[in-house]
Amino acid sequence: MSGWLKIVGLGPGSDQLVTPEVSVVLAEATDVVGYVPYVERVAPRAGLVRHGSDNREEIQRAEQALMMAAEGRRVAVVSSGDPGVFAMASAVFEALEAGDAHWRSLDVQVLPGISAMLAASASVGAPLGHDFCCINLSDNLKPWALIEKRLRLAAEADFAMAFYNPRSRARPEGFARTLEVLLDACGPERLIVFARAVSTPDEVIRVTTLGEATPEMADMRTLVIVGSSQTRRIERQNSEQNEPWVYTPRSVGAKSQASTSSAV
Amino acid sequence: MSGWLKIVGLGPGSDQLVTPEVSVVLAEATDVVGYVPYVERVAPRAGLVRHGSDNREEIQRAEQALMMAAEGRRVAVVSSGDPGVFAMASAVFEALEAGDAHWRSLDVQVLPGISAMLAASASVGAPLGHDFCCINLSDNLKPWALIEKRLRLAAEADFAMAFYNPRSRARPEGFARTLEVLLDACGPERLIVFARAVSTPDEVIRVTTLGEATPEMADMRTLVIVGSSQTRRIERQNSEQNEPWVYTPRSVGAKSQASTSSAV
Repeated sequence: MSGWLKIVGLGPGSDQLVTPEVSVVLAEATDVVGYVPYVERVAPRAGLVRHGSDNREEIQRAEQALMMAAEGRRVAVVSSGDPGVFAMASAVFEALEAGDAHWRSLDVQVLPGISAMLAASASVGAPLGHDFCCINLSDNLKPWALIEKRLRLAAEADFAMAFYNPRSRARPEGFARTLEVLLDACGPERLIVFARAVSTPDEVIRVTTLGEATPEMADMRTLVIVGSSQTRRIERQNSEQNEPWVYTPRSVGAKSQASTSSAV
Repeated sequence: MSGWLKIVGLGPGSDQLVTPEVSVVLAEATDVVGYVPYVERVAPRAGLVRHGSDNREEIQRAEQALMMAAEGRRVAVVSSGDPGVFAMASAVFEALEAGDAHWRSLDVQVLPGISAMLAASASVGAPLGHDFCCINLSDNLKPWALIEKRLRLAAEADFAMAFYNPRSRARPEGFARTLEVLLDACGPERLIVFARAVSTPDEVIRVTTLGEATPEMADMRTLVIVGSSQTRRIERQNSEQNEPWVYTPRSVGAKSQASTSSAV
């Protein structure tokens, strides 16, 4: 069987952030499967069928992709950002595990992409330069109580935090509650970054504090980063760039002055 | 002034994981600065000076890069993976904040890369497909007590966990202690992935459990991922691939059967 299923990340938006290996897969695929706006990022060409579906059909989409790969087609399942971070990779493995035993012999691979989290961090400096966590604030797939527990434990651990899906019309209250919990746990001076539509023409970066932040500063296209207690801002002397740089030092406590490395 | 400083991620090893925007920067740079093995990943060419330095000289390296950019040179500071995750970006901003006030007017940008964490996750499936945290296990730059506190809180939050710098000759005991803490907090059945030298010819992926894991399974080239309580394994029916897939479902608890999306 010559078919395959590759679950690929298109990055946050710019073609300049699509990896060469993903571009090769998109050029070799017979079918591209995904949420409509992501499928539309793949240019039409002869021999390529684009299968766009709605944002609430991950499992059906995954099953369709597995079936086509089993039929010998070369199928690319596309996600924005990285496919393994709150995207299609987990949905495909859920469908694979629950489905036809023969699917376990398929050539299924995940190809990483530049995640919204990493692109947002880079856009302001390096707020994720020390230990951090990454939480999906949507309670579509988990109880809100678990999200709130994780927020409080993450604050106690003094992690920087990256938040996906902070807010939607269907869930206007969750992010307001998130800000309340973090203000209580981290205080009003804690830095927060709102990175909207990073790497696209619509990109807007806003740096403020928990004391100044409001729920309206985020929407579903916004990646939110809250710093740790160590996260700092540096004002730029550059008229073109109004927002400061934000970074988290590599060191904590008594070792703050160390210049030794822990870079991989 | 035409100089600039761009802190770029080379990805985990394969040229196929270097983003186009980073390739452009490397082609335009007059100087490449970084840890010797990373600088050596940039091919020599006329007009390019490669400045390789040791792994314990981040701040001096950052100052050198800032000085050259201030002199009008086009400087690329290179890290493996993503420059904002336990790499050079934070070191550059530490040096910038502590240094010459004029450095704050420089054109300093961070360009993201495929992090070892994302590449390791993709190599086995999607273990980071739900909420997770990322911890640097080196205690060169923070007290060990803080690392252990974060491990216990991360287990309590039921995060999947990605660990950088698990082990070195200088710190043989830290990772052994990490495994003890996690075995106590998460139990012997919890899945753990050892992903060594991902995307390079030396790549070795090993999937086991905390009950079976030993410190020797990791070295400084290994990215370690410990699953959450929800993380699952799927045995492949594929002789070429002996290791199972590992993934974390998108859903938790009562909402496990939901097929609604929280993908960005």
